This record gives sequence, structure tokens and C-alpha cells, in this order.
Amino acid sequence: MDSFPPGSSRPGKTRCYFDWAATAIPDLSDPRIHAFGNPSSLHYEGRYARALLEDARTRCAVVLGLEPQQLYFTSGGTESNALVLHSLALRKPSPGILFSAVEHPSVRENCLILERLGKRIAPIGVEQNGRVSLGRLEKALEKMGKIEKGGKKTEPRFVAIMGVNNETGAVMDLLPLVKLIRSRGGAPIHIHSDLVQGVGKIPLDIAALDLDSAAISAHKLGGPRGMGLLYLRKPLEPLYTGGGQERGIRPGTESLTGALALASCLEARVGPQQLAAEYEKATRRFIQLIRDLRTLPECFLIPQDRREADPRFSPYILQAGFKGIPGEVMVRALDERGCAVSTGSACSAAHADRPVLTAMGLDKQARQEGIRISQGWSTTPEDIASLLEAIREVLTLFPGNPGKEG
Amino acid sequence: MDSFPPGSSRPGKTRCYFDWAATAIPDLSDPRIHAFGNPSSLHYEGRYARALLEDARTRCAVVLGLEPQQLYFTSGGTESNALVLHSLALRKPSPGILFSAVEHPSVRENCLILERLGKRIAPIGVEQNGRVSLGRLEKALEKMGKIEKGGKKTEPRFVAIMGVNNETGAVMDLLPLVKLIRSRGGAPIHIHSDLVQGVGKIPLDIAALDLDSAAISAHKLGGPRGMGLLYLRKPLEPLYTGGGQERGIRPGTESLTGALALASCLEARVGPQQLAAEYEKATRRFIQLIRDLRTLPECFLIPQDRREADPRFSPYILQAGFKGIPGEVMVRALDERGCAVSTGSACSAAHADRPVLTAMGLDKQARQEGIRISQGWSTTPEDIASLLEAIREVLTLFPGNPGKEG
Repeated sequence: MDSFPPGSSRPGKTRCYFDWAATAIPDLSDPRIHAFGNPSSLHYEGRYARALLEDARTRCAVVLGLEPQQLYFTSGGTESNALVLHSLALRKPSPGILFSAVEHPSVRENCLILERLGKRIAPIGVEQNGRVSLGRLEKALEKMGKIEKGGKKTEPRFVAIMGVNNETGAVMDLLPLVKLIRSRGGAPIHIHSDLVQGVGKIPLDIAALDLDSAAISAHKLGGPRGMGLLYLRKPLEPLYTGGGQERGIRPGTESLTGALALASCLEARVGPQQLAAEYEKATRRFIQLIRDLRTLPECFLIPQDRREADPRFSPYILQAGFKGIPGEVMVRALDERGCAVSTGSACSAAHADRPVLTAMGLDKQARQEGIRISQGWSTTPEDIASLLEAIREVLTLFPGNPGKEG
Repeated sequence: MDSFPPGSSRPGKTRCYFDWAATAIPDLSDPRIHAFGNPSSLHYEGRYARALLEDARTRCAVVLGLEPQQLYFTSGGTESNALVLHSLALRKPSPGILFSAVEHPSVRENCLILERLGKRIAPIGVEQNGRVSLGRLEKALEKMGKIEKGGKKTEPRFVAIMGVNNETGAVMDLLPLVKLIRSRGGAPIHIHSDLVQGVGKIPLDIAALDLDSAAISAHKLGGPRGMGLLYLRKPLEPLYTGGGQERGIRPGTESLTGALALASCLEARVGPQQLAAEYEKATRRFIQLIRDLRTLPECFLIPQDRREADPRFSPYILQAGFKGIPGEVMVRALDERGCAVSTGSACSAAHADRPVLTAMGLDKQARQEGIRISQGWSTTPEDIASLLEAIREVLTLFPGNPGKEG
């Protein structure tokens, strides 16, 4: 970086720029524009942008405990998941694909697309608490290995298990799950994990998890939209190609501003001390929330055995229902009272079905009643108190509810 | 928009936000953050973000003369091209795919991927000037229609022809080319055009071109990286799925900041008066450049018959070579003299081969000597003079060049 003094970061002002077809000169008065060159260009502007981009990559790698060459900038968590999955379309022999039944739509729905392209896929069931158990995983691996298609067995060659579920906060025990997969003989199995709701929220040592790939999103960490990371232990062959950016893994001119902002938000959130301190505070706020929700007879937690401080669940996400009140009604009623909660994930807010809750064995009514309460680092105990007050107020409006006369 | 007063656009300050799993609250002191809600969320923050996003879409549509529901926000030009191409993987019957031999890598290379997935593809040859002629197009259509595969004919069902070539500035005569394709009988043919180097640079009436789809990039217009538009006359079924955003066409949480910035830069560049005025100024600067380059005996234009003011070429992109000086050497020598030019596209700067120049019939030496000079709206006549001075200086350094003793 020494060869690129910051004072030269606006070369358009002092140099003659004739590479507008690569990228245009933007309004340089914006303080967030660190450099405008296309990182693939050979000239000074390009090399300067390249140096900043690689600096951002290294900063991400240091915080995450990974090697910079294992990290690829993408347009977000959805693309990081899709990129890995779609690369399977080209792989020979055709890989058997397993995915947990509670995956985010960007994993689950792309598996369904792969099935249409002729791949064999199968879900891994979850326990009533929404977590993948060793037993369920073993069963799914065994079952797929026995399936014959045209006289040929389809061996599982790919497994996707998320780190933290986006609807229930269920934390998957990735370490023993990965060990079980690795203990099988035969050809290696690629293990992918969607860590979008995990990184920056719960303690995660990605390198120690022995994964082959993982997805990270910036905006879930307070960073910009349209920015994500893909961790790949080894390069793969992507289905979706283009100009060869990100060492051929992810095409399209890299967003330098986005990469630098992602590095900054990872540094702010993922450092072990910040993370542990925020985790502790989030846990304490959720103890207050869960304890008070348990006093409401209409309220049920999903899963029901979730404890106030429960290491099996992220202290940032809680799924709960209110008997007799559809989740969408509760979301709107709380919204009118100044509280923003959601039903399922935002990515499936328009869908009536709740595949995650279905996989947990909840009946239709309970699925319709579930809402998601998710918090972050600027949430305060007063916010929790306000939310509880709003919930109590909504409950009084529904006839037959014990809180009505309270 | 009236229901969302700007003063309420930072609801995190006055409301209780419990939807961090959908998107985190970023640092709201950044003036570029207009709203942080996830546009898919049902609550106030989500609806406010949705309203702003749709406002950005409408602004883009008004400037481009298209319907808002025909525009989809993507992560850039590369993704817009890839999204349309990869949707062909699912189409039945299997479509025959034609693409001009001078397409950007994000079109050409994804066609090669489709071939690996079993699709029949073929390039459309170009004339020596780098343009697709009616004759070449007709020949390609006829030839594909005659090919039998397993006793079945593969009819062309998809044609990709870019608007402006990114290496030579060749402007394709899209209107008659599209008319020729439409005049064929049989099942309809999807016509896609990569307009990344056209929109905001040359006059384009997308609606009048009778295209089925088109790709636009923000950063080529001075907008943010990681942002683009896809025009689709009718929705298609994408290969790459996820949370159902952009009406199921492009998954992943939408970048609101990016969408608003894209709308602003389209308004600044694409309005007919601004565009015509800039086109005129760019043409005048290129007249000066081309006239002076023609005085240098070492210099040859690519194609050689490019005129000083030539409507067959964009006045923003010029390809030229200097006999005996490899393009990469020239790029580095000019860079040392403060001028940023490129060889091929930035997207293929690391590639030694030059498929666009090969398709134009240039020999290996000429291909290696080609450099691209591209300008924009803040380029000045003084910049042109500086570039010419730098070129002359470089030429004196190479023995045997007439300019050496001059």
C-alpha cells in the first residue's frame, strides 16, 4: 500500500484517465469513494483499486482466521450460497446433494433447481427443536447411498447445513456433524454452511469447523447491501462466469467501497472480545424477554423447550407464537405500536407456507401464529420492555384472551 | 411516498426494531443511507424501504422510456447478462443459442457454459469493422436451423447481440437486425442485448428496438459498483433462485442505496438533451484524437476504416495499435506518463487472447498491439492533447520509429 499514497487516490484530478469503458469516474466528492479504478485494469488507477481491494480481503481474512486467497467477494449471502450450489451442475460424476430441511430459501430453492437439472437431492430432517442431529444426518447419508438410479447408486457428495437458523435461531452443532460426514469412507463430500446469521453473532471458528465452503452477508452485520463473502477452502468451477474477476470464481467488477465497508463491519463485530461482550448482553436481554413472554398464557415459544439462556439457540433470534392470533396480524398490530417484528424470514415474508416450522413438525395453526423477534447490538433493555408492553396491549384486543381484563 | 415523511426515515431512533435477522441497523449518520429496512419486510421500516426502492425503479423506467415492472435491479451488467442466459438451461424444448462473436465475456463465456449443459450454441460472425451485418446474422440463423442433433433440428430460439462493443466502440444496427430475426417464421426468438456500453453514451430507444431483454450497468455511468439493471419485456424463469426478491427474477436483499444512486446517474446521463450534448462534445474530442493519431505513421486504427466522426462507432471508445509496440507495453509506458488506457476490456486484461479482434480477422501481431482509449463526460480537450503528447513521447523511445528523431 505504501506505493499508493492516499493523496494520489483521486488520480482523475491529476492524471489523464482514458479507461471509461472499464469504469467511469464517479463524483469524487463522496468520501466513501476510496478509489475508482477497475481492479482488473493494469494502469495506476486499476492497481491502486486492486491494492485496496486486496487489503480489504486480508482484513476480512485476519478477523475470520482464514487465508485471504480463500475469500471471494460476492453480491451477498444469497449469491454465496447459490454460487456453490450451482457449481454442482457441472460436476462429474453427478453428485448426490443433501441439505437440511431448515435451510434458507437461497439454499433450499437452488437445490430444487438442481433437481430439475437432473441432480439427486434429499433433505436432512431436523428434530422438533429445529436442529440437525447426528442421527438424522446419518440416516440421510445412508438413505441416499442406497438409492439406485438407472442401476447406478447416487453417493452423497455434497451436504449443506446452516450455522444458525434464520427463523428460530437454532445453532447447529457443526463440529460433530462435520466429523460424522468426514468419517464416512469413499470419495470426499463437500460440506457447505450458510453462516449468514452466525458470523458476528455467535462464536465461530470457521477454520476449525473443517468446512469446504461458507456464506457470509454484510448487511446482516450492519454493512452495505449487495455485499457478501464466500469462503472456499479450495477453488471450484462456477457455473456463472464472465470477466474472470475474483480469480474466476465470481464475475463482475468488484465493489471496492462495499469490500472496504464489509472489512470494517467484520472488524467491528467479529473480533472475539466484541463478539463475546455483545453475545453476553444479547443473552441478558433475551432472558428478560423470554421470562416475560412465559408469563403470558397465550404465548408459546418455538420450539417449546427453548430456555431463557440456551446455548442451542442464538440470543439474537427468537420464534414465538400467540394462540389465536395469526402471525401476520400480530406483526401488523405491533407495527402500529412502533415495534418491527416479522413472521418468517424477510426473504419469504410473502409466502404463506413456513417450510422451517413444517420441518419441525408444527401443525398448520402454530405455523401461522409464529413470529420472529430478532435483536442486535443497539437493542436496549428498554426496547425489550416496550416490545413486551406492545405485545400485552395487542393481547387485550383479542377476545377470549386472559390478558384482556388484566 | 407521502405516507413516509422523510423525518421518519430513521425509525430505529424512535421505534423499536426487532427484525435484525432480516437486516441490521447500520450507522445512520451516513447520509447515503436513506432507509435501512429490508424491502421484503411487512413492517413500517420494510414498507418505507420498499416505497423508496419502487420509486427508484420508476425513476429508471421514466428515463429509459420503459415500464417499471419490466426493470429488475441486479448486481451489475455481468449478472444481468448471465441471468438471461442461464434461464435458458431450464427452457424446454432446448433452445438453439446464437451470440455475436464480439460479445463481452459475460455473454460469450456463459454461452460456453450452456454448451457444456447440452445446449447448442453458435457465434454470429462480424464484418472486418467488428459489426454484425444482416448477411452474417442471416447466415448464422440459417446454418443453425439446418443442424440436426440426434435426428432433431435445433431451431435458433435465442440471439444475443450487444449494442456497443466494449473494445472497439462498434455500434450495432440493432433495429434492422432485430427486424430480420422477427421476420422469420416459427416459434418466437428471444433477443437479448448487452447495452452496458450504450446506455447513457449513444442515443438508444430501448422500447423501439423490440428487444426481449437488455443489460445495463451503473458503474459505467458513474454510479456505484455492484448495481445494474435487467430489462425484461416479459418475466422469465431464472436458474438462480432464493428469497423471491425482484418478483422472483433476482434473489438477494435489494441494495436500496445502489438503486437510488443508479436512478440518479441515469437521470444525469440518459436524458435526451444531456446525452446529445455529451455525445457532441465526445465526438469533437475524438475528431481531434483520431486526426492526430492519423499523423503518426506507427499508428493504425482498429478497424482501419474508422472515420474521425463515424456514427458506426461510439465516440467514447477507440481501439488503435502502434506497430512494433505490444499493447501491454504501450499501456505501461503511457501509465508512467500519467495516462490510463487499457488493452482489451478490464474484464479480460489478464487474458492474452483477444477474441473480439480475432473475430474481426486481425492477425496475431495486430491483436497484440491493440489498445483501447475510452473517454467520458469529464474528459477535456487538454486531456486529449496530453495523451497525444505522451504517445509521441513513447514512440520516440522505440528504435526504428519515424518519430524518434522528430
